[in-house]
Amino acid sequence: MGSASRKTFLPLDPMSFTNESRAVIDFIADYYKNIEEYPVLSRVEPGYLSATLPESAPYCPESLEDILKDVHDCIVPGLTHWQSPNFFGYFHANASTAGFLGEMLCSGFNVVGFSWISSPAATELESLVMDWMGKLLKLPSSFLFSGTGGGVLHGSTCEAAVCTLAAARDKALKELGGWENITKLVVYASDQTHFTFQKAAKLVGIPPSNFRLIETSFSTGFSMSPEKVRFAIEDDIKSGLVPLFLCATIGTTPSGAVDPIAELGKVAREYKLWLHIDAAYAGSACICPELRHYLDGIELANSISMNPHKWFLTNMDCCCLWIKEPKILVDSLSTDPEILRNNASKFKGVVDYKDWQVALSRRFRALKLWIVIRRHGLANLIYHIRSDISMAKRFEAFVAMDERFEIVVPRKFALVCFRLKPKQEAEGTELNCKLLDAINSGGRAFMTHAVVGGIYVIRCSIGTTLTEEHHVDALWNLIQENAQILLSESIN
Amino acid sequence: MGSASRKTFLPLDPMSFTNESRAVIDFIADYYKNIEEYPVLSRVEPGYLSATLPESAPYCPESLEDILKDVHDCIVPGLTHWQSPNFFGYFHANASTAGFLGEMLCSGFNVVGFSWISSPAATELESLVMDWMGKLLKLPSSFLFSGTGGGVLHGSTCEAAVCTLAAARDKALKELGGWENITKLVVYASDQTHFTFQKAAKLVGIPPSNFRLIETSFSTGFSMSPEKVRFAIEDDIKSGLVPLFLCATIGTTPSGAVDPIAELGKVAREYKLWLHIDAAYAGSACICPELRHYLDGIELANSISMNPHKWFLTNMDCCCLWIKEPKILVDSLSTDPEILRNNASKFKGVVDYKDWQVALSRRFRALKLWIVIRRHGLANLIYHIRSDISMAKRFEAFVAMDERFEIVVPRKFALVCFRLKPKQEAEGTELNCKLLDAINSGGRAFMTHAVVGGIYVIRCSIGTTLTEEHHVDALWNLIQENAQILLSESIN
Repeated sequence: MGSASRKTFLPLDPMSFTNESRAVIDFIADYYKNIEEYPVLSRVEPGYLSATLPESAPYCPESLEDILKDVHDCIVPGLTHWQSPNFFGYFHANASTAGFLGEMLCSGFNVVGFSWISSPAATELESLVMDWMGKLLKLPSSFLFSGTGGGVLHGSTCEAAVCTLAAARDKALKELGGWENITKLVVYASDQTHFTFQKAAKLVGIPPSNFRLIETSFSTGFSMSPEKVRFAIEDDIKSGLVPLFLCATIGTTPSGAVDPIAELGKVAREYKLWLHIDAAYAGSACICPELRHYLDGIELANSISMNPHKWFLTNMDCCCLWIKEPKILVDSLSTDPEILRNNASKFKGVVDYKDWQVALSRRFRALKLWIVIRRHGLANLIYHIRSDISMAKRFEAFVAMDERFEIVVPRKFALVCFRLKPKQEAEGTELNCKLLDAINSGGRAFMTHAVVGGIYVIRCSIGTTLTEEHHVDALWNLIQENAQILLSESIN
Repeated sequence: MGSASRKTFLPLDPMSFTNESRAVIDFIADYYKNIEEYPVLSRVEPGYLSATLPESAPYCPESLEDILKDVHDCIVPGLTHWQSPNFFGYFHANASTAGFLGEMLCSGFNVVGFSWISSPAATELESLVMDWMGKLLKLPSSFLFSGTGGGVLHGSTCEAAVCTLAAARDKALKELGGWENITKLVVYASDQTHFTFQKAAKLVGIPPSNFRLIETSFSTGFSMSPEKVRFAIEDDIKSGLVPLFLCATIGTTPSGAVDPIAELGKVAREYKLWLHIDAAYAGSACICPELRHYLDGIELANSISMNPHKWFLTNMDCCCLWIKEPKILVDSLSTDPEILRNNASKFKGVVDYKDWQVALSRRFRALKLWIVIRRHGLANLIYHIRSDISMAKRFEAFVAMDERFEIVVPRKFALVCFRLKPKQEAEGTELNCKLLDAINSGGRAFMTHAVVGGIYVIRCSIGTTLTEEHHVDALWNLIQENAQILLSESIN
């Protein structure tokens, strides 16, 4: 156990670091080159992996070659290939070389920037890049460090929701004069709002019965009605409850709908609710001047979040949260244990990001977003968004031109919600369910579904980094082929 | 905007992916080669970065060379170098080539395994590696998938705390028959327990006044007294409150103390409290047969968490959480939105990890832990832990042999808590504060402090991947030199 034998175990030796890392880079590059050969949706059955790999850890080290062979033989077949150009499911998670480089530097430095002092660059670059990103979205200066607000990088929208809900909760409980009022607090969202907000509200102790899902419909394109929100608030006030928090969405998950921020903002102001804007998906698109109007009224919000890890070429995970009054967030989340006390935090008014998030530890995610923005530049980032929207328009036009199909919800971004028209409405779900299953099980493309206004729709979400027009054209051919088979079967 | 121009913007082109990734690998390898040249604690002043970098994002793309030059010139000087062999602060975050490779594959595949179907390999490898890790720690099968429990990878202990607290809370509220009972729930920990549990309890809506900090002292080596816990519980029951959750620690942050799991487990059983074991730091050490006894009694716990990203050569972030009755966790955290419904989740009883954590989205962290274990093997992982403990013993012996110093808390793992003996007790804090500042500002090493039992101690935490005996010897020389200067100043 002396220093002599130590030399035989060097788990971070720069030479083998370089050689082994290069082998993995080559492995990943090959994966990208061959990605279209794999069925997009994995075909494995539950339990496949435990049937293949040993039940227990090895006692002796194994070679990288053996490990990469297992990754190739056992892991890759079990992946649903989110980076495939034929992946049109959920919302995409579009990777880029720049995002990957940022992740490498983050992991290579492996610093933990919980306090400013624990790695000043991690904190300062994050503050800087949050201002950069905020300016790309033309957020008011009240959300920026260069103004009176500030921003933080979280791992997910749910974390942003938990933190903003806790901040709003604690501010309200202080004003109401006691923790027992927690059962009076009410949160408002629409039936299209991401379910993560319901989960987050329950996590922070808001009774699930105090979560209001405002109904939406085809008539408003599934956007939330400010009048309905007002009615719900008035109802709750009459019942002795305390309206707390309203969540509006730019680009809902089921259909890409947009809530009217400006009008909802007025209601929130009137009743003193915390207004949060969830722009997880479509926030990225608002860097395009022609789409920025969806954020009009943002000055009335208290906080806004969006996910560069969805549509901004930033590898997982990366969620931007801006907040107008960081003090409220910090009051709720701050801790001041002796073990972390230092002069910079005490005397120099620095940002300590541990007080802006759930965890103490944190990765240096800012490097990634900073490199993504610099390596591409606003010009190419706008081009990237427009190119996806252009492909979505093309796909939408294919659907519209084929009378067997219909567009169910008008497209706003790069998500197209369509279906095969059923002969009778009652058959709509089964028919489209079958169509989707046929396409996905074929392996050549992958889409997912939603139910909006009671109608089962197929969602074609365009936006993986590698998708080009010919992939969209091939998808449409595939859909037509499968529809033809289905329709001829139903005739026979 | 047609397909012709599209060809000019290829953000995930395999050829440039390979070339640019290799450039970053070389950059990081150089960083490791030269890491001892940098002052361990960054010397920048608050605001240094915004004085150097532009206020807004560039419109046009920038070259990787320019970006890496800025990383070198602007970011590296602002890092506190957690991978430096002379970093002895906080608890280390020890990186390895294997951990880095796992992060690369995770980021390269960039899949989002929220449900089994969304990438079966991500879920299945995680379940497998949680069982591997649980077996390395000799956890009872009641915590393993191969038994009746299960495990999940979180990003941080705080996330594990939030999730287990929410699970315990929701089970209790169901039994008590209403959400209004949330203000009756009480959480117990010691004054040495990581503050993250207090933050987590508040986050899930437990009133801060219902968090009990059981006092510890030198007499028990700062471990939590089961009798004191029992008294506190009895007190609360008499006041009409409902004892909910007890957190015990293996290796506390201030001094590496260990709570008596078996005895605390009996108390928890008797009063039906959820017992969580926080082994964030020292859990890794329990893979060594001679240290496994610290986990004796673990069969009485409901959940246990530990952080491979601290002392298990696993790059950030990675926190293992095992739970005995996953159903309770899933009941609390599950969501079943239409948009994610699929046959595997519905009919095949698969694990959907979205219901085991805060967020929906998640990174494929299991790859990293799996590669760390395979590439090193249990043999080298044990060697790694023993080697750090051996160096800590060596350092402890240096301190003990120098009569100007004293060991304040007996060492259990690789953390040594010591101080320069003051002539008068009242001067102890100032003297050791000065000593620590002198060492840290010199740049050749970095340590942090704690206050235990009212005494300010310097913490020497040994365990970065690159630390070897000669670094520990140099640290001790540095401490002696600085102490000599301080002591001679105080005489003059």
